[in-house]
Amino acid sequence: MQLTKYTDYALRVLTYLAVMPQGEQANIEQISQKYDLSIHHLKKIVQQLGVFGLVETRRGKGGGISLLKLPQQINIGEVVGLMENTLEVIDCHTSPCKILPACHLKNILAEATQAFMVTLNQYTLADLIADNKAQLIDILLIDTNRPAPQQ
Amino acid sequence: MQLTKYTDYALRVLTYLAVMPQGEQANIEQISQKYDLSIHHLKKIVQQLGVFGLVETRRGKGGGISLLKLPQQINIGEVVGLMENTLEVIDCHTSPCKILPACHLKNILAEATQAFMVTLNQYTLADLIADNKAQLIDILLIDTNRPAPQQ
Repeated sequence: MQLTKYTDYALRVLTYLAVMPQGEQANIEQISQKYDLSIHHLKKIVQQLGVFGLVETRRGKGGGISLLKLPQQINIGEVVGLMENTLEVIDCHTSPCKILPACHLKNILAEATQAFMVTLNQYTLADLIADNKAQLIDILLIDTNRPAPQQ
Repeated sequence: MQLTKYTDYALRVLTYLAVMPQGEQANIEQISQKYDLSIHHLKKIVQQLGVFGLVETRRGKGGGISLLKLPQQINIGEVVGLMENTLEVIDCHTSPCKILPACHLKNILAEATQAFMVTLNQYTLADLIADNKAQLIDILLIDTNRPAPQQ
């Protein structure tokens, strides 16, 4: 069972933005470099996060990407629900399953998916950076390409 | 979020076998025809279900596929757990995620997946054919290729 890469990368972008110093903007090149993800995919994801009202992108000098809400206002279940194409864990419709009219499995799977989402709904982006923010900043924001200070 | 087709088809095969009259054997061609699924895929799935001790395949005349356990002994969560390649809904490892050492998301997703599986563990194959067995038999076992009786 897997979430799409789309959802995975969206959560990584949001985590990145959540540890940015207040007032600072991120850019896609930085995020791409730090997570080793394609700029092309990230552009689409950031655009989608913008459509959902979770991030904003400002153009020009001093521009960039930032969160439009506080981390504690961004619910993980909501992000997953918005980014996934479907929450039906089995596709009964594309090549229609013959037993669909009599199938109980789809109801059981829907109940299980509901339990999955209820758990995610208990968490926000703030929980992803709760006691590990300093470590995330070290990994994501410290410029590892700068020459090491001379001894 | 999706389960693999492998798991989907395994559950369809088990449902088919669960509505077979006691003592009768199914064959892959029938299952393939009824669900409109490739024989090649079904062979692999039936073989895997055999490895897991859920079905047996007898060769020769009067041979075929049948359940090795009663439907109420075949747990849906167990089948899903056996058939899925992974229950990690995000792949943190294949191209290793940089924030893995500091990531709380993986724990939250594991908790949600646990809730998903706890729900599935409450059901068995018997629940899939509880009050709809006659309808499933109509769909799966009645030979729709036979000419309609003459009026």
